[in-house]
Amino acid sequence: MNNLKLTGRKPGDLGSVIDVCGVRVGEEFVVIAGPCSVESEEQTLRTAVAVKAAGAKMLRGGAFKPRTSPYAFQGLGLKGLKILDKAKRETGLPIVTEVVDTRDVSWVGEYADLLQIGARNMQNFSLLREAGKSGKPILLKRGMYSTLEEWLNCAEYILAEGNASVILCERGIRTFETFTRNTLDLSMIPAVHAESHLPIMVDPSHGTGIKYMIEPMSLAAIAAGADGLEIEVHIDPPSALSDKDQQLRPEEFAAMMRRLDDLRDFMGERLEAEAEAIRKGDAISTPAPRSDMASSAAAKDVATQTDTDVNASAHADATRSIASRDPFADAMD
Amino acid sequence: MNNLKLTGRKPGDLGSVIDVCGVRVGEEFVVIAGPCSVESEEQTLRTAVAVKAAGAKMLRGGAFKPRTSPYAFQGLGLKGLKILDKAKRETGLPIVTEVVDTRDVSWVGEYADLLQIGARNMQNFSLLREAGKSGKPILLKRGMYSTLEEWLNCAEYILAEGNASVILCERGIRTFETFTRNTLDLSMIPAVHAESHLPIMVDPSHGTGIKYMIEPMSLAAIAAGADGLEIEVHIDPPSALSDKDQQLRPEEFAAMMRRLDDLRDFMGERLEAEAEAIRKGDAISTPAPRSDMASSAAAKDVATQTDTDVNASAHADATRSIASRDPFADAMD
Amino acid sequence: MNNLKLTGRKPGDLGSVIDVCGVRVGEEFVVIAGPCSVESEEQTLRTAVAVKAAGAKMLRGGAFKPRTSPYAFQGLGLKGLKILDKAKRETGLPIVTEVVDTRDVSWVGEYADLLQIGARNMQNFSLLREAGKSGKPILLKRGMYSTLEEWLNCAEYILAEGNASVILCERGIRTFETFTRNTLDLSMIPAVHAESHLPIMVDPSHGTGIKYMIEPMSLAAIAAGADGLEIEVHIDPPSALSDKDQQLRPEEFAAMMRRLDDLRDFMGERLEAEAEAIRKGDAISTPAPRSDMASSAAAKDVATQTDTDVNASAHADATRSIASRDPFADAMD
Amino acid sequence: MNNLKLTGRKPGDLGSVIDVCGVRVGEEFVVIAGPCSVESEEQTLRTAVAVKAAGAKMLRGGAFKPRTSPYAFQGLGLKGLKILDKAKRETGLPIVTEVVDTRDVSWVGEYADLLQIGARNMQNFSLLREAGKSGKPILLKRGMYSTLEEWLNCAEYILAEGNASVILCERGIRTFETFTRNTLDLSMIPAVHAESHLPIMVDPSHGTGIKYMIEPMSLAAIAAGADGLEIEVHIDPPSALSDKDQQLRPEEFAAMMRRLDDLRDFMGERLEAEAEAIRKGDAISTPAPRSDMASSAAAKDVATQTDTDVNASAHADATRSIASRDPFADAMD
Repeated sequence: MNNLKLTGRKPGDLGSVIDVCGVRVGEEFVVIAGPCSVESEEQTLRTAVAVKAAGAKMLRGGAFKPRTSPYAFQGLGLKGLKILDKAKRETGLPIVTEVVDTRDVSWVGEYADLLQIGARNMQNFSLLREAGKSGKPILLKRGMYSTLEEWLNCAEYILAEGNASVILCERGIRTFETFTRNTLDLSMIPAVHAESHLPIMVDPSHGTGIKYMIEPMSLAAIAAGADGLEIEVHIDPPSALSDKDQQLRPEEFAAMMRRLDDLRDFMGERLEAEAEAIRKGDAISTPAPRSDMASSAAAKDVATQTDTDVNASAHADATRSIASRDPFADAMD
Repeated sequence: MNNLKLTGRKPGDLGSVIDVCGVRVGEEFVVIAGPCSVESEEQTLRTAVAVKAAGAKMLRGGAFKPRTSPYAFQGLGLKGLKILDKAKRETGLPIVTEVVDTRDVSWVGEYADLLQIGARNMQNFSLLREAGKSGKPILLKRGMYSTLEEWLNCAEYILAEGNASVILCERGIRTFETFTRNTLDLSMIPAVHAESHLPIMVDPSHGTGIKYMIEPMSLAAIAAGADGLEIEVHIDPPSALSDKDQQLRPEEFAAMMRRLDDLRDFMGERLEAEAEAIRKGDAISTPAPRSDMASSAAAKDVATQTDTDVNASAHADATRSIASRDPFADAMD
Repeated sequence: MNNLKLTGRKPGDLGSVIDVCGVRVGEEFVVIAGPCSVESEEQTLRTAVAVKAAGAKMLRGGAFKPRTSPYAFQGLGLKGLKILDKAKRETGLPIVTEVVDTRDVSWVGEYADLLQIGARNMQNFSLLREAGKSGKPILLKRGMYSTLEEWLNCAEYILAEGNASVILCERGIRTFETFTRNTLDLSMIPAVHAESHLPIMVDPSHGTGIKYMIEPMSLAAIAAGADGLEIEVHIDPPSALSDKDQQLRPEEFAAMMRRLDDLRDFMGERLEAEAEAIRKGDAISTPAPRSDMASSAAAKDVATQTDTDVNASAHADATRSIASRDPFADAMD
Repeated sequence: MNNLKLTGRKPGDLGSVIDVCGVRVGEEFVVIAGPCSVESEEQTLRTAVAVKAAGAKMLRGGAFKPRTSPYAFQGLGLKGLKILDKAKRETGLPIVTEVVDTRDVSWVGEYADLLQIGARNMQNFSLLREAGKSGKPILLKRGMYSTLEEWLNCAEYILAEGNASVILCERGIRTFETFTRNTLDLSMIPAVHAESHLPIMVDPSHGTGIKYMIEPMSLAAIAAGADGLEIEVHIDPPSALSDKDQQLRPEEFAAMMRRLDDLRDFMGERLEAEAEAIRKGDAISTPAPRSDMASSAAAKDVATQTDTDVNASAHADATRSIASRDPFADAMD
């Protein structure tokens, strides 16, 4: 992966932290939640309040929906963005919404705090360049047919425009298996951490398309070291205008979040203890690349970064990342 | 495939004919040829003259190249379009070129006679809508990850905007096989003819990525009933700025075209004889759906077309197509 | 593909001819036809008589059926083999039937003239070795998940046991596309001809799983240079115990065979003319690798074959094949 | 999945427990470890001692290796089995080894405690039947191209012979992604638990083919509710005769096992607490299907099973499984 001048991980690179209205992806674990589509003010606001109460740190909601058929619900457009804006004012949650057209990047960017580029547009290079020029944080989903190399090159398109705020999101790839909607490829978590300094989130809703799989796959993503999750929540899934089968009810989401938090806490403590042992010289061997859950803990003492990157400030705010995430650290141990 | 109101084939529908500056795709067999990218005036003009001499009916050439890496050659843009325009004036060949951005559709459409939407943008629904509004004939390539159903729904996006001039192009799908660049899925030829009235072309250059496979796969596409081919030709492939390994030299293309023409002639004559036998009542059984090579032959007696195009009568001008292409004809035999 | 000591094509290698009871695959074009499963004596004999009349050169029929579910019809076993034997005595057609167990190779081999190893057993290496030891001609189908390299290595297992009589058969691979049962990969025809001296047949019945696609895909396979076809024919498809949707009726098969024969004749004549032109020095350029349809024609003047088969001279008897099939011939032109 | 008479999960079914020499898969979490291939007595014994010390409960080692090329190392055969036998006598670890030929099932079964059927033989139905007749516990790996439905049907072949002791093992499927050796499909963990009562293990070694991914994918598998892991360990990976790149050194394995154990303990405690809360009526809602880590804990009090299953005793020893694993439990909450 030679061409990844800005996206690639070089020896010594720490993981980047992407700041979205104060939510620091790559440093803190972040759950983005909300409906597949913004359908009405009531539906969106009630969902926003509920997911915030359950611990979500950002609100997602689609105003422009890429749909297989031109006759399917296409989203509320500007009206949807205004509803999201209201939800932000009421809950304080930053807004994550998809942009699907180069012409919309600037004005949709006025409503969105984190602009999502969806799987079907991953290789819409014009859109990637506009996203780069916008300077907004970008959530770049993996195309359902795209290799890791292609995906990271798409991030490179954005970074090459001077925008270092890119978060990757694995959302399942298309395979022969039809039991699940897509095949969620969790191996991309360690792969991205090894090849790039960008944070990686996981979308188990689209990744499986099956409600009962969202919790186990979310737990798995946490255990594998994901930096966050994007999960679809709807106040009344059976009435949803899109993706009925994979949206959680607010109470299901809340119950799941408690279990996710427990696992997060456990993994954070465990890695903090390991970092402590390393500092004291108790540890005989440090493991090969692993999850970066101890970021806020271990990293504070271990790493001090002096940012001299070529790229504007591609890693500027990456100061909090952990040594343990660095696959090159191996040699040192 | 219930939602294909305009793209779907209904019992009795004949195949549509798409007119591109007098070249009638669906009625006559059409080879589009030219370089992957427009690189210079000399390269483009020399190629244009050569492919015309060999029998190509349209000139292809990319001015905007979707490339995996942002650091790869991205095309000459407007300069490239002007070179194509010059090539058109010199050879009379209609121009086929890709558009990759909604903002470019109108002005690129002033240079292009057939606007190509590439595999990576197949589900760029905003671009599909703009392509629909433009009223220009569209060459819609199959996404490397897309099912027949998704592909036809993308055509539906264009037709739903009132633009019935869509030509489909199979260019290979992504599978586990890495020997070939893609897996060229020729079964889409009879599949498209059964499910839709739109014509289908085949791109064996991208479909295989291997020079020595272009001829056998082109012959196969003709035998299976394709309405045309899109083939990359470059005056000096080793120096090409993209796709070096799959571009033919003009003399290779010319030699191949002679063999393609022979096969086309043979299949046309054979089907004409069959059509004649049917008219005379000599034929005991008529086959199930098969290639539509007899179009120009058999069809002449069957129907006369008055071209009045445009949406409301998406199929209106399809009257020149052949009964033998109609999968519903079965029942009558 | 370095390890293909016996299966690989070396510069100068001609295509191998595999003799099955006098039917010479690789030299003459061979259609194998018959029911998916042997279900009864009447069904099998009537089908055998019909496919012979239509021009098939071998009779296929499954006595041991690999089925997804243990509760599906598993084949008649020995009883089925005896029915096939009777069909052979009545029609003279060599028998093609599948073997699925190492323990059965020798006794099934007493009934079969061409032992088929199915897609699901392609990498059953024990079975491949037994097939090699048996000395019987083997029809090795491509696994639905296997690369060209793996497939040729499986042939190598057989050749490495001293059995050079292997015919490859492309039958479709598994992809995300569900419209067709499998994705028939016709690019394997030129690929196998380039990488190996073994002949390659195509099975459009399993390759598409859709009746109306069998003819166009058969024509395409011929045009791309396949050495033969394997096609499922049943006297009453709706009553078939397996693969109802993809078996042709005898009259459909006969009608199709006439069109396949026409195309075969045409391509043979055309290549014979080209060979003649080359001999006379009229031809300016010889094409890159292409179909080997002229084998019986062009080859007659080129070489004379004495059949002395068996391993040590895996390629020894391949002398009848055509120069035009040789991808290395390029350099000479 | 209608045909899964014995393998399918019916409402009320508890998860099966498969007893392998006292190791109870489905009840306790089980790590199988050992070299890809048995290469020598020293290599095997040293590995066996090391993996036992690190907490592995069974020893794996291949004596018959299915290899792509016939010229690659094929395993030591009987000699390898005798080495495994010695390792078992020295360590007490039950032996897991692959069988690849119907003729070998009975005698290999004398050395193996858990017979492995590999991915390439998943649909070798003759071998499945012999495995069923053997009565030995079977570890059935998922074919690299097989759907959940096909996989469970292969288990059904074994159960239909009266052998209910089947453990499934996800080992990655083949997709377009080449960065990893296979795409490890962890969604099969909740899927198998929902559709079947059989336990499911995960093989991250073959599933990723990359050393640094084994730990994060193992942690993820645990978090998603896997019943165990199969991991390749070699005393000197660079000298291994197969799969060099994915085998862990004993000390790497031991370090990883400590982290796996911690996660296992945490998840067990958490679920035990949840089960306790349910018993006390404290819990307002019980989650949808989730990991079954609390099996030994929660299940003891919650479930008492009276086995009256139709199928011989397909579930006979499933008495220890947990309510929380039952996807049908949802309705009750």
